[in-house]
Amino acid sequence: MKNQVIVLAERPSGIPNENTFQFNTIETPEILDGEVLLKTLYVSVDPGMRGFMKKGTDDDIGTKYEIGKPITSRTVAQVLESKSELVKKGAIVHGRFSWQIYQTISADQVELVNPDLGPISTAVSVLGVPGLSAYFGLLKIGGIKKGDTVVVSGAAGGVGSIAVQIAKIKGCHVVGIAGSEEKIKYLMTDLGIESAINYKETKDLSKEIAKHCPKGVDVFFDNVGGATFDAVLPSISKHARLVICGEIAGYNQSDPPKGIRPNHLLIQQSARMEGFVVFDFKDEFESAKKEMSQWLKDGKMKYRENLIDGFENIPAAFIGLFKGENIGKQMVKVADPD
Amino acid sequence: MKNQVIVLAERPSGIPNENTFQFNTIETPEILDGEVLLKTLYVSVDPGMRGFMKKGTDDDIGTKYEIGKPITSRTVAQVLESKSELVKKGAIVHGRFSWQIYQTISADQVELVNPDLGPISTAVSVLGVPGLSAYFGLLKIGGIKKGDTVVVSGAAGGVGSIAVQIAKIKGCHVVGIAGSEEKIKYLMTDLGIESAINYKETKDLSKEIAKHCPKGVDVFFDNVGGATFDAVLPSISKHARLVICGEIAGYNQSDPPKGIRPNHLLIQQSARMEGFVVFDFKDEFESAKKEMSQWLKDGKMKYRENLIDGFENIPAAFIGLFKGENIGKQMVKVADPD
Repeated sequence: MKNQVIVLAERPSGIPNENTFQFNTIETPEILDGEVLLKTLYVSVDPGMRGFMKKGTDDDIGTKYEIGKPITSRTVAQVLESKSELVKKGAIVHGRFSWQIYQTISADQVELVNPDLGPISTAVSVLGVPGLSAYFGLLKIGGIKKGDTVVVSGAAGGVGSIAVQIAKIKGCHVVGIAGSEEKIKYLMTDLGIESAINYKETKDLSKEIAKHCPKGVDVFFDNVGGATFDAVLPSISKHARLVICGEIAGYNQSDPPKGIRPNHLLIQQSARMEGFVVFDFKDEFESAKKEMSQWLKDGKMKYRENLIDGFENIPAAFIGLFKGENIGKQMVKVADPD
Repeated sequence: MKNQVIVLAERPSGIPNENTFQFNTIETPEILDGEVLLKTLYVSVDPGMRGFMKKGTDDDIGTKYEIGKPITSRTVAQVLESKSELVKKGAIVHGRFSWQIYQTISADQVELVNPDLGPISTAVSVLGVPGLSAYFGLLKIGGIKKGDTVVVSGAAGGVGSIAVQIAKIKGCHVVGIAGSEEKIKYLMTDLGIESAINYKETKDLSKEIAKHCPKGVDVFFDNVGGATFDAVLPSISKHARLVICGEIAGYNQSDPPKGIRPNHLLIQQSARMEGFVVFDFKDEFESAKKEMSQWLKDGKMKYRENLIDGFENIPAAFIGLFKGENIGKQMVKVADPD
């Protein structure tokens, strides 16, 4: 069975490029007792993976990306064979799998996709890590409540596009920040967000945010960091919550990024800046997925997957994230289920 | 009645100096209905006041320091005359009063000092804003619990010296950071803190903190900011709480201070950085003062007031804060009560 894997060829400096990755043709390993043989269907590529490429950095499950070893990311796959009682042949599963067409893995490393909740690809998009990050970030870390002014950066991306909608569902005044007219149109026309700012067409982002948030920013859901963070900071209201979900502006820098210290404003406004990883809330994943699935079915929430076809295009899809190419969740479709 | 007031002569750039302040000889104003005439006894000088000297910055009660107007700070005073039923002649009171030997003020702007809790000067030291900042910062913002590793910067100062002791009372492993051998000795010998670091005698503060905190920093109570904050950041543990109480390293800078962005580490460690002003907790002041008063009476907690004598020395006492002169709470004794 022809098989391919994508490994980390070298640690990138700056934005990853084609030299970062290497395609290897390999034998499909034999399936052992307790394992399943998976066929990759959908691969999610996420900005945060750039952070894991730095030497010595743990990824979100505590493993590391190593030179010559497969890149892993959230993936939907089908079980072609099973030597475990946990999972049956034919099942659709998801988990953190290698960028590999076929792979064997311990059956306790896969989770069943519940097809009643939505199309199977959503297990790594709106009903997966990105959607859950928006959900728990806003509700648990941000503590959003009706009437809050909520600003979301990276608002048209895989996490941001869900965050703006959850904030809207909860009765907040929502302001999205994104980087193209097409994204602004998507936010305002398709998703019905009141207010969106194209930061690339804005001379003074800070002033623009102040204008869109006359009562101040109660919650900032930040996927970007850097200059975007600095621009929002002066507008925070008393007891503001700055939810630090991502820092795409900083991932490609080799030195820790520097910027305006938030300390003084945090004191002045009794404000809070809090990071999180979605797995902090894993005990509540099932109920969150059910609630979001219902929002989708009721038409209260939409999602878009920016689907790129073909295993060979996974690195390009990942690199594209840093060019701001995607609207919605950046993903690669590798195969249909049997 | 000979009277003097100290007004803001010019807004300082950098560390305040003698030109920042001007002494004016004035007439003592006539007391009106609803007012009290106060004689100043103890004046507290606080690093945070430097922030209020910037144009357009509100102080902690929402007023502003203006050129030619009196500087105000937390003060203990005696009521020499009263034209209000709220306060009696002879009473010892505290509040935010002008740097003025005698002054009249609306009676609803003063609060009675409860002499049962401690000596009257403590109303602006351990049982006043500094002590309460330590108390609420650690317990409410930091959520310290037994076994936590707690790092306190500015540990020998008016707030820090109380914070290290509260953390110790609560069963935490406490590490103090201070800037002289005398301060280190005070922390370890007088206050019984296990571990203290003289940052001025340390080549690599970050390494030193890592060494003193083998299990990571669970709570950082920061009075300093700047390079001290940066040095603690790499050692924070999962779910760390960074309590931002002050930023003495930044108060004298004219541009907002810049430094390493904490965003990425906050994500990685699901950590929180939170500012506060003590008045957020004013409804709980009385119970907090009672608890701290009991700790003092039981010998569980000590306090030191760095008392400087004489109204004319108030500016020097304030300026001294930025030279790291004080151990304990920097204060000026202006007069004894009648």
